[in-house]
Amino acid sequence: MSGRLDIVGLGPGGAEHRTAAATAAVIGAQVVIGYGPYVEQCADLLHGQEVVRGAMGEEAQRADEALRRAAAGARVALVSSGDAGVHGMAARTLARAAALPEDERPAIEVVPGVTAALAAGALLGAPLGDDFAALSLSDLHVAWEVVERRLTAVAAAGLALALYNPRSRTRTWQLERVLEVLREHRDADTPLAVVTDAARPGEHVERATLATLDPETVTMRSLLVVAGESGLVAGPWLVAERGAGVVA
Amino acid sequence: MSGRLDIVGLGPGGAEHRTAAATAAVIGAQVVIGYGPYVEQCADLLHGQEVVRGAMGEEAQRADEALRRAAAGARVALVSSGDAGVHGMAARTLARAAALPEDERPAIEVVPGVTAALAAGALLGAPLGDDFAALSLSDLHVAWEVVERRLTAVAAAGLALALYNPRSRTRTWQLERVLEVLREHRDADTPLAVVTDAARPGEHVERATLATLDPETVTMRSLLVVAGESGLVAGPWLVAERGAGVVA
Repeated sequence: MSGRLDIVGLGPGGAEHRTAAATAAVIGAQVVIGYGPYVEQCADLLHGQEVVRGAMGEEAQRADEALRRAAAGARVALVSSGDAGVHGMAARTLARAAALPEDERPAIEVVPGVTAALAAGALLGAPLGDDFAALSLSDLHVAWEVVERRLTAVAAAGLALALYNPRSRTRTWQLERVLEVLREHRDADTPLAVVTDAARPGEHVERATLATLDPETVTMRSLLVVAGESGLVAGPWLVAERGAGVVA
Repeated sequence: MSGRLDIVGLGPGGAEHRTAAATAAVIGAQVVIGYGPYVEQCADLLHGQEVVRGAMGEEAQRADEALRRAAAGARVALVSSGDAGVHGMAARTLARAAALPEDERPAIEVVPGVTAALAAGALLGAPLGDDFAALSLSDLHVAWEVVERRLTAVAAAGLALALYNPRSRTRTWQLERVLEVLREHRDADTPLAVVTDAARPGEHVERATLATLDPETVTMRSLLVVAGESGLVAGPWLVAERGAGVVA
């Protein structure tokens, strides 16, 4: 079979943070598949490729469609915002591919991209310059107890945190609880930032502390960055210089 | 003053994983400053810019030189491999910029890039598809006790791990101790991978488990990826599908 599937991370938003490989994969594809807004994100690369726009919640169907089309001989790009390997489509798609008989499995490549944590970090300065954890706060696929167990461990360990999916219209109490957990383990004046629509139109940065954050400023399009034990405010920036102010 | 400083993440290696913004920043610079091998990494973008190659261990001098030249009116690109905000030059440079009087501080932008963890993850499949931590194992700037404290917390929490700076010619016992710590908190058959020179000539992937890893396969150019509680081997890939096999 001559088809292939590229699972492509488009970066956080505009074309400026897209890699050359991601651009080439979309341009070279015969079929471009993705959640509607992600397809829009690479609209500048569409020149007649067949486009399959999926809806939120239909990730499994998109993965299967992408695998089926590639196995049938098409060159397919399955596109995600950010990095498809970080809270994106790659893991699910590869797991489904692995379940296929080997002779029905197309050639697959994952094309990395600039994930939201890196885009937000760059906007803020360098808050992830020392050790950090990237966690999702969504309890859609794991029990809330798991989210809280992991969060507690990394908060207590003093790592900087990049928190994906911090809040949505239907998930609102979770962020309040997250702040409680963080305040149990970190100083109230720990700096943090809410970055909404990083590298997209309407990009917005809200700086606060664990004590002063207004949860209403956090949306489903936000990433929450919380400083670690080496994090500090330096001039206009949030930075984490390895070893700064850290006591063994 | 009309100068400016872009702190640029070039991505893991070849031009294919470099973003458009990183490429534009280097092309548009009058002065390109970086550790020698990083300057080589963007040699295809050099067209007569002044080039300042620094040595390992001279990061503070490079930061100061970049700030000084930008403050004097030059357009400067300070280049790093990967993402400059993740165990790169950004935090240190911004911290030094913040210490300058405001009127001696040039305009600064951090240009994000594909960090080694994302490049390695894409090569392996999607091992960072669920929550993960990115830690450096270097005890150059923090006490070893801090490295071990953080590692213990994230290992016990079941996160996937992307371990930067896992070993060098002079730091060899540390990786042995890291494996001991990981084995205390995770199953011996936990899958892992050593990715060396991701997206560079000589790229090499070594798959193993916590029980079978040969530390000699790990070099200063390697990144070590250890599966989290939701990580598993699926066909030829290492994947972490959120919630897969996780017990609260």
